[in-house]
Amino acid sequence: MRILILGGDGYLGWPTAMHFAARGHEVTVFDNYLRRRIALETDSEPLQPLLNLHERTLLFEAEAGKRIRVVLGDCCDYERLVGTVRESSPEVIVHYAEQPSAPYSMVDRRAASMTFQNNLGATFNVVWAVLEAAPQCHIVKLGTMGEYGTPNIDIEEGWIEIQHKGRTQKFLYPRQAGSLYHTTKVLDTDLLWFYVRLYGLQVTDLMQGPVYGQRTPEMDMHEDLSTAFNYDDIFGTVVNRFVAQAVAGVPLTVYGKGGQTRGYLNILDTLQCIELAANSPPGSGQLRVLNQFTERFSVNQLADRVKSVGDKMGMAVEISPVENPRKEAEDHYYNPVHSGLLELGLTPHFLTDDAMASMLERVARHRDSIDTRKILPRVRWS
Amino acid sequence: MRILILGGDGYLGWPTAMHFAARGHEVTVFDNYLRRRIALETDSEPLQPLLNLHERTLLFEAEAGKRIRVVLGDCCDYERLVGTVRESSPEVIVHYAEQPSAPYSMVDRRAASMTFQNNLGATFNVVWAVLEAAPQCHIVKLGTMGEYGTPNIDIEEGWIEIQHKGRTQKFLYPRQAGSLYHTTKVLDTDLLWFYVRLYGLQVTDLMQGPVYGQRTPEMDMHEDLSTAFNYDDIFGTVVNRFVAQAVAGVPLTVYGKGGQTRGYLNILDTLQCIELAANSPPGSGQLRVLNQFTERFSVNQLADRVKSVGDKMGMAVEISPVENPRKEAEDHYYNPVHSGLLELGLTPHFLTDDAMASMLERVARHRDSIDTRKILPRVRWS
Repeated sequence: MRILILGGDGYLGWPTAMHFAARGHEVTVFDNYLRRRIALETDSEPLQPLLNLHERTLLFEAEAGKRIRVVLGDCCDYERLVGTVRESSPEVIVHYAEQPSAPYSMVDRRAASMTFQNNLGATFNVVWAVLEAAPQCHIVKLGTMGEYGTPNIDIEEGWIEIQHKGRTQKFLYPRQAGSLYHTTKVLDTDLLWFYVRLYGLQVTDLMQGPVYGQRTPEMDMHEDLSTAFNYDDIFGTVVNRFVAQAVAGVPLTVYGKGGQTRGYLNILDTLQCIELAANSPPGSGQLRVLNQFTERFSVNQLADRVKSVGDKMGMAVEISPVENPRKEAEDHYYNPVHSGLLELGLTPHFLTDDAMASMLERVARHRDSIDTRKILPRVRWS
Repeated sequence: MRILILGGDGYLGWPTAMHFAARGHEVTVFDNYLRRRIALETDSEPLQPLLNLHERTLLFEAEAGKRIRVVLGDCCDYERLVGTVRESSPEVIVHYAEQPSAPYSMVDRRAASMTFQNNLGATFNVVWAVLEAAPQCHIVKLGTMGEYGTPNIDIEEGWIEIQHKGRTQKFLYPRQAGSLYHTTKVLDTDLLWFYVRLYGLQVTDLMQGPVYGQRTPEMDMHEDLSTAFNYDDIFGTVVNRFVAQAVAGVPLTVYGKGGQTRGYLNILDTLQCIELAANSPPGSGQLRVLNQFTERFSVNQLADRVKSVGDKMGMAVEISPVENPRKEAEDHYYNPVHSGLLELGLTPHFLTDDAMASMLERVARHRDSIDTRKILPRVRWS
């Protein structure tokens, strides 16, 4: 199929592009290097330096014999975006093109404003570029489990039927998120749902949990095909960060009580989920919401897992709670449904001791590159 | 009190400014004439020409002996806005400063994009200007009953406690609106709620129904203190439009089946509601939502009321359904709670035959100025 990946240079965008290209699909990546610019600006660059998109795609072509087309552009530049949609005529657009860091969105007004304008503006333009240039195209939008927050009732898969005073109505599940970044994704979903029901778009909104991992078959072809591995407080998700801390001999920084529970997934499962969604479009006028994670952990459980495996590898891992820089419940009910992707055929890669050991081993090869200044939280939610 | 009225040149903003100034409050109005520019661009200018804000405030000072400070500025220009907040040091900000026309928001991509960026950008900047320059200030935000749409369950006042699988959680009432304009207000509410719970802002979100009427004690001081009276398809709310049609001898254009039911209010009650809200701030960290209307009518009921009173006045009013340019339910359940403002002391002005006759009589004075080209719907939701 013809597939356009917006944000195709990112932690997930780049592996997604290779995944589809390797399987013979016609892939275009579109990116404005926003994540690279924020990493530079905030001193949060990844563990290993990255080739640029032109270099990456040339290397991938040399290794895999498959071409990935590159367009450097900003989704907030409507003419550039709609031109790319027109030329690439995608059957599927995967929309990752947002400022993806919750802490960055909470730095100050400037960072918040950029996140807000960028994320909402990108989604607005994606909607219109599809309406104008590819109305049959299926938009696969990356949302986040963080949209739901931590309500005291079960989290359903996007929709809930509310019974109230003897009557019933189905609604988008009410969402209230814990950072401005996550809030932009709440608003994205509402905006998409408006245009889906008004103009018959077809959208899959993937409510993804924190992703961990760094290896996929395509990345394994060549070290320089690796995706960004961030272990800093801005872009590093908790598992990746804890792994780097264990390797570097820095105590694992559990924020607050550590009872914060989320649904996690391996980067391999992100690729599976995107492909499963892309292969089964929901149909015109449908907003399909899928909760994208494979297993739940509290932060304490994750720290204990990293310590247990790390200790066996001789790392003498310590755990050291720090004051929580975020405003969030540290001990809460959390029971989200996540059956939709399993029904579509997802075969999870769980966070086994072997998987953990493999991550630790991989990061340990770059131990000397870990800059421990970047690990402690630099952004407070206040 | 010190009060800053954003969008203080509009249909409601200008009467609100005079209302507070007449009662001795220190009023600053801030406006960028967006509504005037859209009226010009879409050939939707009001029944009578309007003085500009400088002229209006000078005339008001001459008539009422009270000064209203004028700042011409755009809420999307953060420096201008925060400077005004700093200088005027408001205890209350009334935030009307949005592109207010549902049909305009549905014209095309350009109009949609402007509405989306303007409305969300304005609210975002209001939040930050308050955080940075007046953190104790109470934001009174104009939302709309249209945020709720027409669900099949009772519409509560902003919040709903959901019982689900034996557990309960209170959420913002789920909202799904019928135009992009209304959707921007849905997103506004979510954004405000995020910043209220994170940073302790205090906000009243007034979910207002369509407003009718044109007279207030301050406007009655001088013909040129009148607010904009629009009877066109872009800015004209249904009651005002039907009144102008009756006067001009144009059949009342009921859209579709006419069973569309909404909660309406007299412009006098808008002023009361704003004042009641301003006089009772909800407290730090609170988002108070109030449903702002006084009585419910279907479009058919409104048409019948206009016809009945108009006929008695010798107008021989006809009713002529037209194809509905909107996508909306034309026959639906509608039962919204609206007790909050009554509990605060609202004394409604109902749409009696006398009130209707007075509107018809008032508009009839300007019968020759009605341009009947502007009445039929020019924008379709498709």
